[in-house]
Amino acid sequence: MEKLKRNQRIGALMKILADNPNQVLTYNYFTEKFDAAKSSISEDIVIAKKLVDRLELGNIETISGAAGGVKFIPTLSKESIRTFLKELGNKLADKSRIIPGGFIYMTDILYSPKNAKNIGKIFATMYMGQEIDYVVTVETKGIPIAIMTAEVLNVPLVIIRRNAKVTEGSTVNINYVSGSTRKIQTMSLSRRAMQEGSKVLIVDDFMKAGGTAKGMRDMMNEFNAEVVGIGVVIATERPKEKLVDNYVSLLTLKEVYEKEEEITIYPNELLANITEKN
Amino acid sequence: MEKLKRNQRIGALMKILADNPNQVLTYNYFTEKFDAAKSSISEDIVIAKKLVDRLELGNIETISGAAGGVKFIPTLSKESIRTFLKELGNKLADKSRIIPGGFIYMTDILYSPKNAKNIGKIFATMYMGQEIDYVVTVETKGIPIAIMTAEVLNVPLVIIRRNAKVTEGSTVNINYVSGSTRKIQTMSLSRRAMQEGSKVLIVDDFMKAGGTAKGMRDMMNEFNAEVVGIGVVIATERPKEKLVDNYVSLLTLKEVYEKEEEITIYPNELLANITEKN
Repeated sequence: MEKLKRNQRIGALMKILADNPNQVLTYNYFTEKFDAAKSSISEDIVIAKKLVDRLELGNIETISGAAGGVKFIPTLSKESIRTFLKELGNKLADKSRIIPGGFIYMTDILYSPKNAKNIGKIFATMYMGQEIDYVVTVETKGIPIAIMTAEVLNVPLVIIRRNAKVTEGSTVNINYVSGSTRKIQTMSLSRRAMQEGSKVLIVDDFMKAGGTAKGMRDMMNEFNAEVVGIGVVIATERPKEKLVDNYVSLLTLKEVYEKEEEITIYPNELLANITEKN
Repeated sequence: MEKLKRNQRIGALMKILADNPNQVLTYNYFTEKFDAAKSSISEDIVIAKKLVDRLELGNIETISGAAGGVKFIPTLSKESIRTFLKELGNKLADKSRIIPGGFIYMTDILYSPKNAKNIGKIFATMYMGQEIDYVVTVETKGIPIAIMTAEVLNVPLVIIRRNAKVTEGSTVNINYVSGSTRKIQTMSLSRRAMQEGSKVLIVDDFMKAGGTAKGMRDMMNEFNAEVVGIGVVIATERPKEKLVDNYVSLLTLKEVYEKEEEITIYPNELLANITEKN
């Protein structure tokens, strides 16, 4: 078979890196796959690195040494985060989304693969610098954004259930109090779901008083896991004091005026600075 | 700013196509993004097309006319489907996965982003030729594979809930009978979740008698939706007659011998032929 030309190799390299975020791919992998010398692959990577910089697609890191290779870290630029969150806020603030009781219909937005992927990329960008072993969520609405976050961070997802299931084997079960309704609820997680002493990022779609997030944190304590951070898509402005504090929300919901048919949502202005730090 | 060179354009093109499967991207989009002439972009696309063919990454279709552009259809080759399913079957057949009651622990496999993405690509490959408006699943374990399938097909995901939720507005609720336990269960879906008269692909993790799949089909009837197909990861060998018939399973579970600590699972040999047709 004819050898791949440089432009074909760069194309294939970018495709492979895009499909394998946050994963070290060795030089050997590429020399074999492309039937090319290591020196050619090195030059290809230099070109790809400049390209990724220039188009603000993230970073390509090269790791030297025996286990050396290349890793693509797909972060979003401040500008694209701003644009996406502004659009997301505008969509969610559409008055046709108001549901009796002052709720907002948002599953179509959270279940859109493109939105879920973008939200996952933002969470990943926020926590990229930190060591994370698992992304953790509780069923159901946060699962699509959580699996996308896990994909970008290249770690497994753990889903806490509301009730113990026979297909999960022996489980750890906890009771927690919903922060806003004060109802006692339960959470269940299989003993096999994660290793003791892990570092986790909690991801969820919505936070009001933070009772569910606190419940997840308590569950993580049962596994001796450290919660590195909590990322939520929307947090309500009130109550100002949440039951957890190390959380970041992409959007803030100020108010749903059911009678006046108006929703006020604004993007988290601090987010650009947070992503800057990493 | 310096113009992108050909190898950079090919790299960027492949990255953009990888991130936007099954979506028509216009020539204008690329001429603006790359600040290049349409003739150059056309040549780039020819190169990318050959590359995708050669590496068996799927197909790049070009659409001519005013709304013309390029679309990347990421299918998996027969060989990579075979290899992946064999490995998946082997992992699931590990005797340490046996849970009292003859169940198999499989959430770690279903919640791994890489596995979920591969399973999504296989389902998408199977149904690629058909018109699909939504991917539909029921909470909870099938959600990661369903959102990945939806991502590859570039359509929204719909998640049926087990109970009506106040945040979903007015809902359609149905009762159905679990095929194996004969218990009456409920499903609930927001009226806003999908448009009437749509075509849907149902995706789930597991099928025994097919009661849940039939429940989902019944729910789809309530929305006048046509079920184009049903894709499940594992179906049990018995009962041979399921309550639905237009389903495809990636793996077949023959038996879980709890006492002997043995699981027999085999890949669907017909799958290669099914993907051949598309």
